[in-house]
Amino acid sequence: MEKNVRISYLFDFYGDILSEKQSRAVELYYNDDLSLGEIAEQFGISRQGVRDLLKRSETLLVEMEEKLRLAEKFECMLEDVEKIIVQALKIRNTDDKEAAECAQMIIDTAEKLKIRIVE
Amino acid sequence: MEKNVRISYLFDFYGDILSEKQSRAVELYYNDDLSLGEIAEQFGISRQGVRDLLKRSETLLVEMEEKLRLAEKFECMLEDVEKIIVQALKIRNTDDKEAAECAQMIIDTAEKLKIRIVE
Repeated sequence: MEKNVRISYLFDFYGDILSEKQSRAVELYYNDDLSLGEIAEQFGISRQGVRDLLKRSETLLVEMEEKLRLAEKFECMLEDVEKIIVQALKIRNTDDKEAAECAQMIIDTAEKLKIRIVE
Repeated sequence: MEKNVRISYLFDFYGDILSEKQSRAVELYYNDDLSLGEIAEQFGISRQGVRDLLKRSETLLVEMEEKLRLAEKFECMLEDVEKIIVQALKIRNTDDKEAAECAQMIIDTAEKLKIRIVE
């Protein structure tokens, strides 16, 4: 079973739709890097049981992305915000003090927006 | 049964998680403003059947928002983007031509970003 980095990413978006047990399994396997055997021991179930639990969780996460396309959308948004920051940084060097202040406000807001997107 | 404008809004975000029939019912009732009776006739089911279908769909949409909080998140994002546009519009009036051009690029990107958020 290959670890799919995409799953960890989708888990950030859609983790809340999983059951507590599914969510815990994904966290232990993908974020804490535990083995199937270690998770099996913690859960008191078989390795195959953990494998099934993870498979089901992964399917749910991938299906959510196929339906809602949030991860894709948020990646594009982040690119847009980065572009805005690049332009605002250029403006900040202008001799026009007022414009430079506005540019700083744009940068501050854009940084806040970035956090909103990735959180 | 009171029409909840929030549902129509949440439907834009999470409509794709509904079944085809649920989705169709929500569209007819909330977007096309058909009555329960008219939808019942179209679907060949009772008014109570339509009511149940809508209730179930509404619950699913509200639950999704409780879990993912996307509608709330996107509203905040839109506010941030509007703030960025307001500042960029101020900069566009500067005598510094280069800064004005950067401001225009910020506005263009922010407008694209707005569309991404509401789409």
